[in-house]
Amino acid sequence: MRLTEAEIEKLIEEDVPYFDLTSHLLNLKNTKAEIIYSVRESSVVCGTEECARIFEKFNVKVEKLVESGTAVEKGEVILSGKGRGDNVHKVWKVCQNLLEYCSGIATGTRRLVEKAKSINPQIEVFTTRKTFPLAKKICIKGVLCGGALPHRLGLSETVLIFRNHAVLKGGLKNVLKELPFLKKKAPEKKIIVEAETVEEALECIVKGADIVQLDKFSIQEIKEVVRFRDSHNPQVKIAAAGGIREENVKEFAKSGADFLVLTSVYFSKPIDVKVEIVPC
Amino acid sequence: MRLTEAEIEKLIEEDVPYFDLTSHLLNLKNTKAEIIYSVRESSVVCGTEECARIFEKFNVKVEKLVESGTAVEKGEVILSGKGRGDNVHKVWKVCQNLLEYCSGIATGTRRLVEKAKSINPQIEVFTTRKTFPLAKKICIKGVLCGGALPHRLGLSETVLIFRNHAVLKGGLKNVLKELPFLKKKAPEKKIIVEAETVEEALECIVKGADIVQLDKFSIQEIKEVVRFRDSHNPQVKIAAAGGIREENVKEFAKSGADFLVLTSVYFSKPIDVKVEIVPC
Amino acid sequence: MRLTEAEIEKLIEEDVPYFDLTSHLLNLKNTKAEIIYSVRESSVVCGTEECARIFEKFNVKVEKLVESGTAVEKGEVILSGKGRGDNVHKVWKVCQNLLEYCSGIATGTRRLVEKAKSINPQIEVFTTRKTFPLAKKICIKGVLCGGALPHRLGLSETVLIFRNHAVLKGGLKNVLKELPFLKKKAPEKKIIVEAETVEEALECIVKGADIVQLDKFSIQEIKEVVRFRDSHNPQVKIAAAGGIREENVKEFAKSGADFLVLTSVYFSKPIDVKVEIVPC
Amino acid sequence: MRLTEAEIEKLIEEDVPYFDLTSHLLNLKNTKAEIIYSVRESSVVCGTEECARIFEKFNVKVEKLVESGTAVEKGEVILSGKGRGDNVHKVWKVCQNLLEYCSGIATGTRRLVEKAKSINPQIEVFTTRKTFPLAKKICIKGVLCGGALPHRLGLSETVLIFRNHAVLKGGLKNVLKELPFLKKKAPEKKIIVEAETVEEALECIVKGADIVQLDKFSIQEIKEVVRFRDSHNPQVKIAAAGGIREENVKEFAKSGADFLVLTSVYFSKPIDVKVEIVPC
Amino acid sequence: MRLTEAEIEKLIEEDVPYFDLTSHLLNLKNTKAEIIYSVRESSVVCGTEECARIFEKFNVKVEKLVESGTAVEKGEVILSGKGRGDNVHKVWKVCQNLLEYCSGIATGTRRLVEKAKSINPQIEVFTTRKTFPLAKKICIKGVLCGGALPHRLGLSETVLIFRNHAVLKGGLKNVLKELPFLKKKAPEKKIIVEAETVEEALECIVKGADIVQLDKFSIQEIKEVVRFRDSHNPQVKIAAAGGIREENVKEFAKSGADFLVLTSVYFSKPIDVKVEIVPC
Amino acid sequence: MRLTEAEIEKLIEEDVPYFDLTSHLLNLKNTKAEIIYSVRESSVVCGTEECARIFEKFNVKVEKLVESGTAVEKGEVILSGKGRGDNVHKVWKVCQNLLEYCSGIATGTRRLVEKAKSINPQIEVFTTRKTFPLAKKICIKGVLCGGALPHRLGLSETVLIFRNHAVLKGGLKNVLKELPFLKKKAPEKKIIVEAETVEEALECIVKGADIVQLDKFSIQEIKEVVRFRDSHNPQVKIAAAGGIREENVKEFAKSGADFLVLTSVYFSKPIDVKVEIVPC
Repeated sequence: MRLTEAEIEKLIEEDVPYFDLTSHLLNLKNTKAEIIYSVRESSVVCGTEECARIFEKFNVKVEKLVESGTAVEKGEVILSGKGRGDNVHKVWKVCQNLLEYCSGIATGTRRLVEKAKSINPQIEVFTTRKTFPLAKKICIKGVLCGGALPHRLGLSETVLIFRNHAVLKGGLKNVLKELPFLKKKAPEKKIIVEAETVEEALECIVKGADIVQLDKFSIQEIKEVVRFRDSHNPQVKIAAAGGIREENVKEFAKSGADFLVLTSVYFSKPIDVKVEIVPC
Repeated sequence: MRLTEAEIEKLIEEDVPYFDLTSHLLNLKNTKAEIIYSVRESSVVCGTEECARIFEKFNVKVEKLVESGTAVEKGEVILSGKGRGDNVHKVWKVCQNLLEYCSGIATGTRRLVEKAKSINPQIEVFTTRKTFPLAKKICIKGVLCGGALPHRLGLSETVLIFRNHAVLKGGLKNVLKELPFLKKKAPEKKIIVEAETVEEALECIVKGADIVQLDKFSIQEIKEVVRFRDSHNPQVKIAAAGGIREENVKEFAKSGADFLVLTSVYFSKPIDVKVEIVPC
Repeated sequence: MRLTEAEIEKLIEEDVPYFDLTSHLLNLKNTKAEIIYSVRESSVVCGTEECARIFEKFNVKVEKLVESGTAVEKGEVILSGKGRGDNVHKVWKVCQNLLEYCSGIATGTRRLVEKAKSINPQIEVFTTRKTFPLAKKICIKGVLCGGALPHRLGLSETVLIFRNHAVLKGGLKNVLKELPFLKKKAPEKKIIVEAETVEEALECIVKGADIVQLDKFSIQEIKEVVRFRDSHNPQVKIAAAGGIREENVKEFAKSGADFLVLTSVYFSKPIDVKVEIVPC
Repeated sequence: MRLTEAEIEKLIEEDVPYFDLTSHLLNLKNTKAEIIYSVRESSVVCGTEECARIFEKFNVKVEKLVESGTAVEKGEVILSGKGRGDNVHKVWKVCQNLLEYCSGIATGTRRLVEKAKSINPQIEVFTTRKTFPLAKKICIKGVLCGGALPHRLGLSETVLIFRNHAVLKGGLKNVLKELPFLKKKAPEKKIIVEAETVEEALECIVKGADIVQLDKFSIQEIKEVVRFRDSHNPQVKIAAAGGIREENVKEFAKSGADFLVLTSVYFSKPIDVKVEIVPC
Repeated sequence: MRLTEAEIEKLIEEDVPYFDLTSHLLNLKNTKAEIIYSVRESSVVCGTEECARIFEKFNVKVEKLVESGTAVEKGEVILSGKGRGDNVHKVWKVCQNLLEYCSGIATGTRRLVEKAKSINPQIEVFTTRKTFPLAKKICIKGVLCGGALPHRLGLSETVLIFRNHAVLKGGLKNVLKELPFLKKKAPEKKIIVEAETVEEALECIVKGADIVQLDKFSIQEIKEVVRFRDSHNPQVKIAAAGGIREENVKEFAKSGADFLVLTSVYFSKPIDVKVEIVPC
Repeated sequence: MRLTEAEIEKLIEEDVPYFDLTSHLLNLKNTKAEIIYSVRESSVVCGTEECARIFEKFNVKVEKLVESGTAVEKGEVILSGKGRGDNVHKVWKVCQNLLEYCSGIATGTRRLVEKAKSINPQIEVFTTRKTFPLAKKICIKGVLCGGALPHRLGLSETVLIFRNHAVLKGGLKNVLKELPFLKKKAPEKKIIVEAETVEEALECIVKGADIVQLDKFSIQEIKEVVRFRDSHNPQVKIAAAGGIREENVKEFAKSGADFLVLTSVYFSKPIDVKVEIVPC
């Protein structure tokens, strides 16, 4: 996962559209400085490669870089570099902010995944399309570093039938009749159908959806659907979605669902990254 | 506040890079639909104008639009439109997601501001530069709709001296000696200095910084600084920063600080927006 | 399928970076003209919506527009508009060229699909990632209008194991051992494996790949694989790929493969579009 | 000829919008690989410099690179590099596809130019504006590598009067009356007039157009025009355009036209480029 | 001439990256206003169409618009619109500034062209490539509105041989030997050679350059070259370049040169545009 | 100050959209050349870092580079590099033009600042928002290198009340009543009010605007305002704006104003930069 050049430039533009007025007035141009980023809590690092690209644009030489995806302990240095004092100040907050958000998502994801797997090692965790608007790549990078995968990257590449589709086709029953047609038309895709009630879910299983996604089902309801699936059409996969968070993920992991689909990790608290700038 | 065309396009690109495969297979092109967004909780609306621009790109005609900044009750429709079934499906999630995040920040901001003002009607709330990377405009729009203001938009337009500046100039004492020079060089700007200890804060006050920003001070420490300010240099403004959240904002509002600087509203929980699509 | 604003602008930039020197010298600014696009051969129209957006940027009012995907007969007008003479000249070639390439791909695709289906109505046609560099959206729009679908839009959303993957994992046998793991890790995806020999294909079938993609197999070899699949693992889908063109597609349609994957339609000859400009 | 950074990024975005799911699942991050591109037919190489820029973005180190414009024999390696297994997989198809299209155009152009020159060494070959939409730079680079030149890059820099201009000025006769005026107004440009009939062509010659471009004339008609030019106004250059392809270029080369204007090389069949990835 | 969407957005971004803080604090959102642009000196208007596009983005409705290229008297309104008070303030300076620069160039160009033509009605004026960096379209639009034309838009479409080319080919004499080859290779182009001394100029005339561009020649030297041209090779065009400004253009117009090439109009003083905002 | 990648690319695109036709025809690809930029007048250098980035894109190796902001004497080399002949020709004019405009602004700014300070060493110079449209970064970089600062970078970060604001609030008197409110709402900002008459200025001083900006006041009027300020509210800063140029800056420097706000340096005559290309 890499951000585009345009994204790297936008990150800079957001914080340093022209110059650093404070450094300019203090004449920091004539100083040399080292900048050191360390974590104030144990974390999964994410975003250091992007920071290195930002450093480079301001001639700040990378001294140390911990690769995205690495777990680090509280206090560890994850990135450092040296350059002109004013340039070091230009990269400071852009990189700190990026590291805090990215690593926050990576860390939150990993924690959630580990909790889920501690209960059910076979379960997998996927994240929804509901990434922070304009920042999808950042969110997805965090999720990958944390050990989950995106559920669908967008509308163009997966078949997922919602009630909002069905209603335009005369209801779920009608749509389910088209399943054989859809499977033939899109043989490379799994056909996923979202169910909002247990009854709908059972019908999807009977009709042979590849995956039934249970939206906001109680643990009890999920279990009921899973039991039915096991006995009636064991090939169908069951996904649980809606309201799954670190606090309740163990419950869902116990429910028998094959995988979980969730948004909550995108709101993970940013990691607290300490930044020191010292003369050198 | 408006997003650029490029940002509107990027929002779409993130979710619909090519087409909607599900709608394509279901042949929704031949249907007509209405799409209706309503809030599942009382909220401050934000982002509807951007949604209207997204609607327009897919020939979905806006039927109703509640302006950004408006407070709405649970259940109220904030946006609706009509168009071809496949197009309605293309705008669905892009707009829902944008509305949820933007309105979340607007709502969270307003709630926090109201809490602060309920204690101290004179206090003002400002937000830091630590917006979600690549999504600064979205965050700032949310904050404005919520009734706060950005503290500094970037490095190019304000003078804010951190310890990380001072350290390159021989320490805070040295930098404070330059205050008269800085005030003369930048007569249109207020000179803000961040203090990390009470001692530093008092020194900034004595030396005549326009604003002293107290980083992570306890309420007790803030009060001490404010008292000193009142008696020694009442023109200096005191800003409190670091760790201020909805839960503790009333404490800070009582502290005597002139204004608060905080990041937490950017992590406001997205509003739950319900979306219905119906044939028409 | 819509092009982004930036793409529409780039289309214009490619042909009219500044102004139309000829029209400028001839002072066509003071004339009014109608521009009429018709096809010199029966075609599947594609790209008219984008042309309308280009028209709009030069204040050329659309008079007639045949929607993308429509089949038209030789001589039919597919697009016309009215505007200032110099502006009409600015849109002329940009739109003509776009229509010719897009409709060429749409027409070529439809012809190929129809040939394939005339032999085997159950067969589906998919197109590879090998679109004209920088012009992927144009190619995909053409393909959709022609009645095929893209095979995979990119690397991020599908699992397709090539020999070039296997070689880094110790060979195909080793990779096939990971199939159960891959299916569990990516339950929403079908696992596709490319085979380069009949032997490899049979092994993939035995091991339970969801889809086996046969690269450059003879019709005879495909048939052999299909027979084996039918008797050993009928759920596995067989895709034929490599060298499939309009001229030989019927052979492949007869082969028993479930679907075809091909690139050739991207090189379809552009449609010959006649453009008349007349005073009005 | 170089693509812009934005174009290089778009090439990547088209194929690897986020990450390579297959390599991710196979954990190729922990492997090292060499990637080797060779041609399966004798070709004129084009696009390797762009590939090197793509390699660099994924830390794939170039080992060998044959410069664009070089003629190579079947089997020759034109590009190779080494990097992490997952990164090598990200660049694979983007670069292969670019090389195939670019080298296809370069090779097709050179073959056509050589055929034309084998008949008439004085003849020159130019290509029209009808490049693949959004991919003009790629097409032009191919053409230059093949030994032809673009005829006009766009509307802003040349004077070429078509019937569609004339019709807004009261017909060709009227426009030809303006020739002296046009020559004075645009002294740095040659005035080119397109003729659609022999009669029109002769009139253009008589009136002193700098160049007469014959659109879709038969060889016989071209010869007739050339003879008239030779005897009546030998300074006028004669360009033949319309339907010129590798198959018939020798006929046109014999016709006496000074230069040829054609589109067909843009549709040259992409070169077959073999790509091997091996552990290292 | 139109700016791209991206350029229109950049104009806004340069002045209103987020919102108008002053209008926000003054709560002008609740007011309605008319904005009226008039010229404080007689001018050739340029840029109003772009302003209308900026107006549109802020829902300011155009009431009056004088088309680019129109000559207006002191005091005339060239643009006006109505909208919300805060929006009117957002467009104010962006549009004023654009109008002032564009109209300045248009007005300066027209004045210079008229002075030149008052002496020699046959002379034409062209402008160099030395436009303000990043603002080429704005400069070229101004020049066209003023009645001149760009000399060459860039390096890709014209043949202009400078000493800096010649020096890499063994000097001017060597390059001039290649003239017949160049004319054959680029039959659609005029071959322009820059001369820095009278001697060089005469040699270029003798050898048959299509155009000889005299760089920084005195009027006397130009006349000498023109006389030689008249007697030795009357088809060659003579261009004078270097240091031509409004103050001395009449001298150059008298020199006998066929056309003038100059940069000075790009530095034309911006027009003084008055802007009134009134409640409505 | 750095330009974005997109801006660097646009600079190139403006001059070399595809290739250098002249170098191509002269086959300069096979030559090696050095390119040397020197100033023909004593100057403050600006833009060399951007040129180095342009050099790099064409593989021209920087040999010498004088940093932006450096004062150089007539004849000094400010930039040189070596590369392939055709590439050297591609960078030639783009870089020359950038250096000429940027250094022109830097030099003009420094001259003006020095003149002002020679009279009043305490005075500071600021530049308005009226930068060349689309080229704001270039203008601001020049200004910084020249020793001035931008007055306000845009509307989003400063409070400056114009008559055009006041008129929507019932006039200046009404707005001045809101000063205490504005100061409280925007404690981090100085409140600047523009006065158009002496009377207005005095009122602003009395009411306690932080800064009063005098628009187009005579020297005499400025002095009157300053005297009033000194006696009535000495904390208020007085800015003089409108019509300040190098020719009259000394008068304004004597006026007692605290700082000057001006646009004129943006129109500084570009520096004359000599470019030699020599074989190597």
